[in-house]
Amino acid sequence: MPEKVYPYAQLAAFTQAIFQKIGCSAAHAETATKALLSADIRGIDSHGVARLSGYVRLWEVKRVNATPDIRIIHESPSTAVIDGDSGLGLVIAPFAMQVAIEKAKIAGTGWVSVQNSNHFGIAAHHAMMALEHDMIGWAMTNASPLVAPTFSIDKMLGTNPICVAAPAGAEPAFVADLATTTAANGKLEILQRKKQDTPTGWVQDKDGNPSHDANILKQGGALLPLGGDREHGSHKGYALGAVVDIFSALLSGANYAPWVPPFPAYVPMPAQQPGKGIGHFLGAMRIDAFRPADDFKKHMDHWISGFRHARPAPGQEKVLVPGDPEREMEAERSVQGIPLLDAVVTDLQELARRFEVPFP
Amino acid sequence: MPEKVYPYAQLAAFTQAIFQKIGCSAAHAETATKALLSADIRGIDSHGVARLSGYVRLWEVKRVNATPDIRIIHESPSTAVIDGDSGLGLVIAPFAMQVAIEKAKIAGTGWVSVQNSNHFGIAAHHAMMALEHDMIGWAMTNASPLVAPTFSIDKMLGTNPICVAAPAGAEPAFVADLATTTAANGKLEILQRKKQDTPTGWVQDKDGNPSHDANILKQGGALLPLGGDREHGSHKGYALGAVVDIFSALLSGANYAPWVPPFPAYVPMPAQQPGKGIGHFLGAMRIDAFRPADDFKKHMDHWISGFRHARPAPGQEKVLVPGDPEREMEAERSVQGIPLLDAVVTDLQELARRFEVPFP
Repeated sequence: MPEKVYPYAQLAAFTQAIFQKIGCSAAHAETATKALLSADIRGIDSHGVARLSGYVRLWEVKRVNATPDIRIIHESPSTAVIDGDSGLGLVIAPFAMQVAIEKAKIAGTGWVSVQNSNHFGIAAHHAMMALEHDMIGWAMTNASPLVAPTFSIDKMLGTNPICVAAPAGAEPAFVADLATTTAANGKLEILQRKKQDTPTGWVQDKDGNPSHDANILKQGGALLPLGGDREHGSHKGYALGAVVDIFSALLSGANYAPWVPPFPAYVPMPAQQPGKGIGHFLGAMRIDAFRPADDFKKHMDHWISGFRHARPAPGQEKVLVPGDPEREMEAERSVQGIPLLDAVVTDLQELARRFEVPFP
Repeated sequence: MPEKVYPYAQLAAFTQAIFQKIGCSAAHAETATKALLSADIRGIDSHGVARLSGYVRLWEVKRVNATPDIRIIHESPSTAVIDGDSGLGLVIAPFAMQVAIEKAKIAGTGWVSVQNSNHFGIAAHHAMMALEHDMIGWAMTNASPLVAPTFSIDKMLGTNPICVAAPAGAEPAFVADLATTTAANGKLEILQRKKQDTPTGWVQDKDGNPSHDANILKQGGALLPLGGDREHGSHKGYALGAVVDIFSALLSGANYAPWVPPFPAYVPMPAQQPGKGIGHFLGAMRIDAFRPADDFKKHMDHWISGFRHARPAPGQEKVLVPGDPEREMEAERSVQGIPLLDAVVTDLQELARRFEVPFP
């Protein structure tokens, strides 16, 4: 897989220019760029700049509104519901998280459910906004249906990620960001490029039989909930994906389950949609609404250190703490730049020509 | 496995009498009984009356205080921290959930972290307290270390369950209650009695190698996080178990990670405990702090119905909604009674003799 490496600043300038070309304000374009490229810098290549042309195509078919009127349509001291006005999730989710943080400053916690949005990139970017305020951050989103619940042939849920970010003291923050499936779709794409089979428990075929074919989703197959099958706990992964759907869409009035709009602009919208757009759920919990933040952070450092010093299993170098791999990747790519596959570069060069924006 | 069946009311009267004999008030004994037997009636036999003698033994070694002064030690409009004063978790958790519900009535949501508690039975019992108030309920607890994180030999986490209960309209409530391991310890006990091996991905041996031995925990082995191994997503199960630990103990000041006190009274307490007792986390979210409860419930009914009508995979009868199996069990056992293994009956008869309480 040939690839070339680009400094973060160059990709950011390009991405921001493209968002402005489709009509985003400078402020929105900057917010969206930070959210999108946080995926690339953290090593979640499937959710970063590789999707820029996908967002542009959604704008072309008028499924993304570049100048949304994002507003609170319902609230209580610790809650709010936001209508994203079909804007970029990359802009709406940070707005919603800021509302959650402001609520938490006064009420102790803030919880915001979002309707009428689009894909928001990686959950960790939004959840981590809470950290500098000495708050725990939550982020969830539903997504178009690729996942068959336990015992089901039909694809009823998205890969519906959950992220929880908690601050520490001397140690880096704890950041758990996980799709509620055995493997995220991006992992399948890597196997497709390598022409390799999937491990057991990742996918099933269109008739609900176990499969190892990394291309099976293109043939009507489905991703499987975390656990893989009933004997290995897939009913738990299914339940967690369902919780994400309920918080993101049932609480907000967004679409849910198989009615969530697809990301590819060429895929028709589901008929008889029960809600508006895609749904997210953001939360912020002020640590000192529970106990002094310094006490919490001291214990978090102790907790993290305990896990780092656990004895590794045979053949393993060390025990990791959630967030370690992405943080190490960020440290590396901040200095060395972000590698992009040739196919992604070609895609971006096409955007560059079309919108007359120089590509690095 | 010979067993005899007992009506719920008889087991409840017996259990309540035992709790009063160890010094609980009538009100506390009733609360604890309801919490404990909710496990039996819902089919989670490992967490119910089979543990009654275990709680009594914890009282004997003065690790359970039968007359606790349960109190709020810190609070904000939407949060509280509760010191359980070493009481029964079966009493403390319902108290904490009631505080969460009262907070939610005013602030929209209520979140309570608990220190200095003991085991609270099944999470679902506490989370479901929210349902009659048209609220979503959350319950989590940490537990003594039986689980090795991904890549680790050491047991660093409990089976740390998460429960989320959400009301519906015509349909029964959605109740997801799951240990963050591939299989709960109770499932191992069933295989031990049947002298059967475990499936792959449930346990490892004392050196961190994969195992199928249902007795491996007695030989220094460990349960595995949901997912089983890294290739099947065990880092996600590990992250979720860690989140439960952070919310239950780091936010409250309870013990965490390998320092959580063991359930068996004969197992020595860990040295250098960083906190107090076991930790829980309870939450309540008022639906109409987000949108009218009737709209939410109408969409929940539609959501649930969609899943029930998904096409079943080959060999499966139907697709289930989280909470279905336990609800069906409750309907059956409410009428037909609760079956108890001979070993459990013997255990209860011994309690009956000792405390001079007639056993049914």
